[in-house]
Amino acid sequence: MDLNRAGPVLCFGEVLLRLSASPGVRLSMAAHLNVHVGGAEANVGAALAALGRRVEMVTALPVGQLGDLCAAELRRAGLNIEFTIRGEGRLGTYFLEHGVGARPAAIVYDRAGSLFSKAAHPFDWPALAGKAGWFHVSGINLAIGPESSNRALAAVAAMRGEGVPVSFDVNHRASMWVDRASEAGKLEAQIMGATDLLFASARDICRALGCDVPEATAQGRRAAAQAAFDAFPSVRAIVSTRRDIASDGSSMLTVRVDDRETAHETDATPVGPVIDRIGTGDAMAGAIIDAVMRGAGIHEIARVGVAAAVLKHGVAGDQWVGSAAELEAFHGKRQGDVLR
Amino acid sequence: MDLNRAGPVLCFGEVLLRLSASPGVRLSMAAHLNVHVGGAEANVGAALAALGRRVEMVTALPVGQLGDLCAAELRRAGLNIEFTIRGEGRLGTYFLEHGVGARPAAIVYDRAGSLFSKAAHPFDWPALAGKAGWFHVSGINLAIGPESSNRALAAVAAMRGEGVPVSFDVNHRASMWVDRASEAGKLEAQIMGATDLLFASARDICRALGCDVPEATAQGRRAAAQAAFDAFPSVRAIVSTRRDIASDGSSMLTVRVDDRETAHETDATPVGPVIDRIGTGDAMAGAIIDAVMRGAGIHEIARVGVAAAVLKHGVAGDQWVGSAAELEAFHGKRQGDVLR
Amino acid sequence: MDLNRAGPVLCFGEVLLRLSASPGVRLSMAAHLNVHVGGAEANVGAALAALGRRVEMVTALPVGQLGDLCAAELRRAGLNIEFTIRGEGRLGTYFLEHGVGARPAAIVYDRAGSLFSKAAHPFDWPALAGKAGWFHVSGINLAIGPESSNRALAAVAAMRGEGVPVSFDVNHRASMWVDRASEAGKLEAQIMGATDLLFASARDICRALGCDVPEATAQGRRAAAQAAFDAFPSVRAIVSTRRDIASDGSSMLTVRVDDRETAHETDATPVGPVIDRIGTGDAMAGAIIDAVMRGAGIHEIARVGVAAAVLKHGVAGDQWVGSAAELEAFHGKRQGDVLR
Amino acid sequence: MDLNRAGPVLCFGEVLLRLSASPGVRLSMAAHLNVHVGGAEANVGAALAALGRRVEMVTALPVGQLGDLCAAELRRAGLNIEFTIRGEGRLGTYFLEHGVGARPAAIVYDRAGSLFSKAAHPFDWPALAGKAGWFHVSGINLAIGPESSNRALAAVAAMRGEGVPVSFDVNHRASMWVDRASEAGKLEAQIMGATDLLFASARDICRALGCDVPEATAQGRRAAAQAAFDAFPSVRAIVSTRRDIASDGSSMLTVRVDDRETAHETDATPVGPVIDRIGTGDAMAGAIIDAVMRGAGIHEIARVGVAAAVLKHGVAGDQWVGSAAELEAFHGKRQGDVLR
Amino acid sequence: MDLNRAGPVLCFGEVLLRLSASPGVRLSMAAHLNVHVGGAEANVGAALAALGRRVEMVTALPVGQLGDLCAAELRRAGLNIEFTIRGEGRLGTYFLEHGVGARPAAIVYDRAGSLFSKAAHPFDWPALAGKAGWFHVSGINLAIGPESSNRALAAVAAMRGEGVPVSFDVNHRASMWVDRASEAGKLEAQIMGATDLLFASARDICRALGCDVPEATAQGRRAAAQAAFDAFPSVRAIVSTRRDIASDGSSMLTVRVDDRETAHETDATPVGPVIDRIGTGDAMAGAIIDAVMRGAGIHEIARVGVAAAVLKHGVAGDQWVGSAAELEAFHGKRQGDVLR
Amino acid sequence: MDLNRAGPVLCFGEVLLRLSASPGVRLSMAAHLNVHVGGAEANVGAALAALGRRVEMVTALPVGQLGDLCAAELRRAGLNIEFTIRGEGRLGTYFLEHGVGARPAAIVYDRAGSLFSKAAHPFDWPALAGKAGWFHVSGINLAIGPESSNRALAAVAAMRGEGVPVSFDVNHRASMWVDRASEAGKLEAQIMGATDLLFASARDICRALGCDVPEATAQGRRAAAQAAFDAFPSVRAIVSTRRDIASDGSSMLTVRVDDRETAHETDATPVGPVIDRIGTGDAMAGAIIDAVMRGAGIHEIARVGVAAAVLKHGVAGDQWVGSAAELEAFHGKRQGDVLR
Repeated sequence: MDLNRAGPVLCFGEVLLRLSASPGVRLSMAAHLNVHVGGAEANVGAALAALGRRVEMVTALPVGQLGDLCAAELRRAGLNIEFTIRGEGRLGTYFLEHGVGARPAAIVYDRAGSLFSKAAHPFDWPALAGKAGWFHVSGINLAIGPESSNRALAAVAAMRGEGVPVSFDVNHRASMWVDRASEAGKLEAQIMGATDLLFASARDICRALGCDVPEATAQGRRAAAQAAFDAFPSVRAIVSTRRDIASDGSSMLTVRVDDRETAHETDATPVGPVIDRIGTGDAMAGAIIDAVMRGAGIHEIARVGVAAAVLKHGVAGDQWVGSAAELEAFHGKRQGDVLR
Repeated sequence: MDLNRAGPVLCFGEVLLRLSASPGVRLSMAAHLNVHVGGAEANVGAALAALGRRVEMVTALPVGQLGDLCAAELRRAGLNIEFTIRGEGRLGTYFLEHGVGARPAAIVYDRAGSLFSKAAHPFDWPALAGKAGWFHVSGINLAIGPESSNRALAAVAAMRGEGVPVSFDVNHRASMWVDRASEAGKLEAQIMGATDLLFASARDICRALGCDVPEATAQGRRAAAQAAFDAFPSVRAIVSTRRDIASDGSSMLTVRVDDRETAHETDATPVGPVIDRIGTGDAMAGAIIDAVMRGAGIHEIARVGVAAAVLKHGVAGDQWVGSAAELEAFHGKRQGDVLR
Repeated sequence: MDLNRAGPVLCFGEVLLRLSASPGVRLSMAAHLNVHVGGAEANVGAALAALGRRVEMVTALPVGQLGDLCAAELRRAGLNIEFTIRGEGRLGTYFLEHGVGARPAAIVYDRAGSLFSKAAHPFDWPALAGKAGWFHVSGINLAIGPESSNRALAAVAAMRGEGVPVSFDVNHRASMWVDRASEAGKLEAQIMGATDLLFASARDICRALGCDVPEATAQGRRAAAQAAFDAFPSVRAIVSTRRDIASDGSSMLTVRVDDRETAHETDATPVGPVIDRIGTGDAMAGAIIDAVMRGAGIHEIARVGVAAAVLKHGVAGDQWVGSAAELEAFHGKRQGDVLR
Repeated sequence: MDLNRAGPVLCFGEVLLRLSASPGVRLSMAAHLNVHVGGAEANVGAALAALGRRVEMVTALPVGQLGDLCAAELRRAGLNIEFTIRGEGRLGTYFLEHGVGARPAAIVYDRAGSLFSKAAHPFDWPALAGKAGWFHVSGINLAIGPESSNRALAAVAAMRGEGVPVSFDVNHRASMWVDRASEAGKLEAQIMGATDLLFASARDICRALGCDVPEATAQGRRAAAQAAFDAFPSVRAIVSTRRDIASDGSSMLTVRVDDRETAHETDATPVGPVIDRIGTGDAMAGAIIDAVMRGAGIHEIARVGVAAAVLKHGVAGDQWVGSAAELEAFHGKRQGDVLR
Repeated sequence: MDLNRAGPVLCFGEVLLRLSASPGVRLSMAAHLNVHVGGAEANVGAALAALGRRVEMVTALPVGQLGDLCAAELRRAGLNIEFTIRGEGRLGTYFLEHGVGARPAAIVYDRAGSLFSKAAHPFDWPALAGKAGWFHVSGINLAIGPESSNRALAAVAAMRGEGVPVSFDVNHRASMWVDRASEAGKLEAQIMGATDLLFASARDICRALGCDVPEATAQGRRAAAQAAFDAFPSVRAIVSTRRDIASDGSSMLTVRVDDRETAHETDATPVGPVIDRIGTGDAMAGAIIDAVMRGAGIHEIARVGVAAAVLKHGVAGDQWVGSAAELEAFHGKRQGDVLR
Repeated sequence: MDLNRAGPVLCFGEVLLRLSASPGVRLSMAAHLNVHVGGAEANVGAALAALGRRVEMVTALPVGQLGDLCAAELRRAGLNIEFTIRGEGRLGTYFLEHGVGARPAAIVYDRAGSLFSKAAHPFDWPALAGKAGWFHVSGINLAIGPESSNRALAAVAAMRGEGVPVSFDVNHRASMWVDRASEAGKLEAQIMGATDLLFASARDICRALGCDVPEATAQGRRAAAQAAFDAFPSVRAIVSTRRDIASDGSSMLTVRVDDRETAHETDATPVGPVIDRIGTGDAMAGAIIDAVMRGAGIHEIARVGVAAAVLKHGVAGDQWVGSAAELEAFHGKRQGDVLR
């Protein structure tokens, strides 16, 4: 399989309207909400576009001004929408309250019954596969519901059939699986079986394989990765992250990449002051997909991944805004605190 | 029936989250949305509270921060929420784009499947009727769906059973009746049959009675009112409004009140610059219910009605904020343009 | 008396903190207030500074950050504060709600007990008179209280003693005279007796002279002016304004200037859309003082006066921001609606 | 005395308008001010309301829009205003500049001569005592002036007479006692003598008792508490807090609760990034009164106290917005940094 | 020549950063500026994209974040940037102060020396012509300087060589021609000679032809148009607009279309309240190009032109945001003032 | 030379318009920009004015509203503009993106070709020197271009000729010297030769003297200072700063002062949360010039320098806003975190 195949990266998933209160304002007090457009796969696509990749967002948006808003914002973020379907229905929405200190960020989802979650969108997967250079999908497609799950499975199957590399971010959110918790692992495993580049924790792997979660050590993590490599022959690399909380409440991020031969973990990297926690994993995934597409080794993969994840914390909105040069400079020598 | 019965005014209907773009900003461009809490009956209640009436909002709000926001805003507007039910579900929402000049305001509803629209809320209508001094409801309850229609009919029946005066604003919105258009008139007529104070146009009356809409003259309007009085013995007064657009695009409002003996129309009153068009009819209804409760005649009723409607155009949000003194001063001699 | 005497214009009066809600927001709903610095005499001074005059604000400001804010804003507006006294005390404040359409603007004063209103400020009037080129004062000094009245009378006496021209804007606000209503006319007459350039309506003149207000005709206005000229020998010119409200609620402004020989009235000039009504008379006074200082005739005086008053309606804050060229262009041929 | 007596909590004290500049903006530069409504007792009441208690704010507010604003905001925060008196007068105000790093927050008070500080409000203490379930007051009532002190003493006496439990937060602010410094301790002691739940530092206790402040050790703190228990037989528990500043300038909070048998101190808990420092002690007091009302032990009392105080730092405004569940979760296992 | 040729519309011209003060705020007082991206040809392109046309913006943007901002905003507005060149240099900027009432809007240009104005951009005109479906350019290209003029002439020549229809908006701004005023007419005539669809006033035509401006009557306008048709054989239609100011200061717009046979003028159409005057002519041009491309007659052309121009006044920013349906509804029967 | 000579401090340099995005917003995403007025020498002047010094800004500003804005903001910050020249030209501008955590702040300069950078401004240096009490200049004057360099050299020569003390902040910014890198040291040395108070790092000194940069130790720093004292006889004191980055990314500042006898370094002082990094060195320079003018010793000089630099990090804009009392309190005992 050619990891640098011609054609755009296709990002497939739901696009959400995000409405966030300003820092320090609880949702229950909000007089104003900031508007952003998000969604895990769109966020990955935005990071890829920022790094110079051609990206097509494959999704369904409502006709009308709210759908227009999403389409415009996707384009602004560098994604193309040639394969985006428009239809009658509602737009999935989420409300975000930023965390402060000891109070975690909080999300109120209002996405049930969205247009995207409906079964009947006429995506032509074989045709799309014929044009695609890469395909990215997250497990949120599986969590949305049975129709959405089936659609994601069909999409991935079509991609494999055409030799399109597939990246899959498990992105397991227990609150979205409440009614179908027992199905999650099985569905996730089905996508893993068609994946080249897997974003998954040891816990994700064990949910898919039905194994016990190993202890939180380097050996445990390697054991989980090895189990995934054994079970899923197409998987070439597995990316996982770890967030450690220091005693003063600040966070440190570590990115780990396992390939079939070996593994590499970055240093625990301080996150620093946070503007926006959402989409940090998606920024990392975008940077890593880009690195894999250009044939980078696992050190480089982990390096750009942690840089993108940490830098995303400093950008408002779901999506990272930056450049390859900034990822590069992240690990360089600190030149000063103002770039003139 | 005692029009100034002890007990609070009960306003029954859905409370909506309103998200509006700033003037001149299309929804499809919005980076920020202003948050207000609205809903026709809540808006009527807010006007009544501003005029010193004790008001209870009878509705259902989601548990969680969005429901908390609505509850807090209702209280801020002077409504009490002792009889408001909290439950699991989504909050009905609407997006508002203000009109400018030739461009009308536009609303994108996202209210389907809201908690309020569900059937199963345990409102105890007989008990509420025992405590109520007045009951106000709008036809939006009927438009929301069959369960909601049945609930509104049950509520009104309970009120009549206890001798609670009922006001009903038909508030017919064709876009909400698309799937059930043929039922609207019949359901609206059922509520009219239990109403004391009716807010209805000639068109509304004829939809309910199955008659032809009379021509747009004073005689036509009186004919429609007479038909309603004939059909609905409990109706004591009928209020209707008219908006005329001048050649320069500005608006003039007229309020008409028919009782069983006679009718009165205000002068066409210039609306002037507009901050917010939403809820102007609700402000009028609140001011008129208050006037009826204190036994005002139809001249006074029409006078406070047009004052509240016009003044509401100058207040941001769904709800009028003002005082009885301001309604009074509206028709007085202009003292100057700054009150010091 | 030399109307273009060397030395700065001294503007003497209270400086107030103005806190205003955004348009369409009632004070009782405000979550944010906009901060401006105002006061009738400071506003006049700002207009004079915009027109190139050297201006000194003679006032008293509290020590601390609120006084610093006023001092900084006065300087930003072009006024100097060399003769401004700082002391311990509170800053007079007013809250402003902009009017919309039929709702007038509303002001809530919170100025009682301010530092400025206290008696004991060590203004050295003879020394100030020695340095002054012009002296401007408004009747608000008289309304503030007895100490303030005495101070204003002393100031004006010192100015006359040194031959400094004095302008006086009666600026009668009944709400500030509630407790001392019977004194107003007498005190105002005392200042008028020391005035060269008087801003006063026929009503103001008659309050001072104890005469009946003449009817609102050109003859009536001339009769009042003549009475003032007779009573107050130092007065050279009297400026008055008239605001007419058209049937659609829009305003027209007229400026009238009487001198001892004749009178001139501008056309009624449409005000157009309004950003901020406060300080429009002060802007006019500033433009007129400037014109008088350069020896303009009454046509020119009235012309720049109405231009400044109308243009001020389009500028946020208490003070006009503009230029002599803009006053000139106001009456010129409309070139288009965008100056590139 | 029944600590869970029927009836609402009465919070008695002044309500203030708070006008705050945005972070990083000095008051002397502010072009906008954010509006909140505060006051120590109102803040305590808001925390109690957030935790589900019925609360009545007993205060006096000016008639007019500024008083209306306060009334509306109190209601929004969950407080009832049935016993709030409206009258003619000014509203106490304070201006707040948030601190940043090494610069402390700064408050400019403009509260002298407020309506509340006047003597003549017709609070009917015996009648209120008959309805009250709890009574909370702070020492600011004593600092405002002699009339206010007398009123607070009368209120507390009436409460004790009816068996209403009283909580008292000494809240000693030296700047408010400048002219009456020698009276503070005696007045504070008088209220302490009628108190069940006392919020006081060792320094507060010794000011009241005229003793030397013990050294800042556990023994010293216990000695002060013991002295208070000896002097004031009605006091059941004493709450005090300690703020330690780490070398990097960040803060740690500790809450200590003494009862007649023993004492408990929480761990020093990191405060983390700060949105708003004001009202953190009031949030703590509210949480602790709630805990005492439900019969919690001193460990639990201290635990919810420190949680409320720390969490308040992350909420804009004077008042904590949150829930009992959040206080509970504060000490639980960190689940992640986004609650979905 | 095929007016509905395959391929995108190419819009060629400078893209500017627009920084505008809020309404009522003079530039000299501004504490905040709103950011938009503009430029006459980009604005035309945005209108065409809103109407469903594929549009490519042909321009040069600086590398770096300001150029990125422009690129992102162009994409958001629906324009593609495949043929946009990036280079080292500065971004042309303009500062906008909105007019209010009698005060016209004011623009401060800071565009000298911009990257776009430099000679050396490697636009491959023949290649672009091979791909283009239409070419639009304005006279601002000519005003920028000699290199820019030459480039525009080369572009137009290449388009004609390939049979690409050309639209040309003279857009004469005297302030940009100060140093080269004598060249304007000649250069404009050169482009007119290669134009199919011409946006030009009688004054523009006469500047190009060296004739006297005819009187402002229908005959005069037809005479000018006829002269242009005679001089420039490729021109098929000429569009001009007229803005009349009513006595109350409000504006009326008229659009006139001349073809070789006849002419049509719309009614004078009230503009109403104005959010943003900039780009109204560009919105009209976009709507008219779209109409011409689909073969509309001159009545229809004028009709959509005046609709787009008037509606643009209600949209913040340089660019119209709307839809073909809104242009259609503009002339329809007023349905009400809120579209639900 | 008299360090406390009568007459104002003259600050000579370019004034820039600063346009900054809000925290967390990349310039490429900005929809709003905050307006400030900056420039190294103006910032120093603002600090001096805040400390009570009379300051004149010697610069050139464009005619028109942008120049008016700068003039007004300079006055607001306490600077006088009697010697500021107005002329036709553009205003130097810079765009600022605040850094967050690992992302440094970024500046996009758009200052080429500004009015100030032109040669021909008629500053009358001998006359200015006759009036000056102190003269401050930074190396940015040298970096702007040859004309600007010559002008700065002429200014400094005139000052020395009149015995006016000169302070010089090298402020070397490599990006501004790209085309003239080899000249920097020589020009900087020329100014150093006429300087009394020098703000320069060891690296700056060695660039001027052509020596090797000593190692980063106390000895190395003293060696560099000694070399400067040897080379430049007029230099009395040399100030340098050091920023250390802790492992968690936070900053510590140290200020060092060398005089001819000895040296003093402050403790490394934590900077804490940062609102605005720009102008911290200028705030320090202002505080130190003030201290030198009042004859303070090097301990005191360093002490106020580090206080001003650290406190500036907490103030939005280029300029420190504060007071001598705050500099004093900075090193005092922490009284609490809210000053009431």
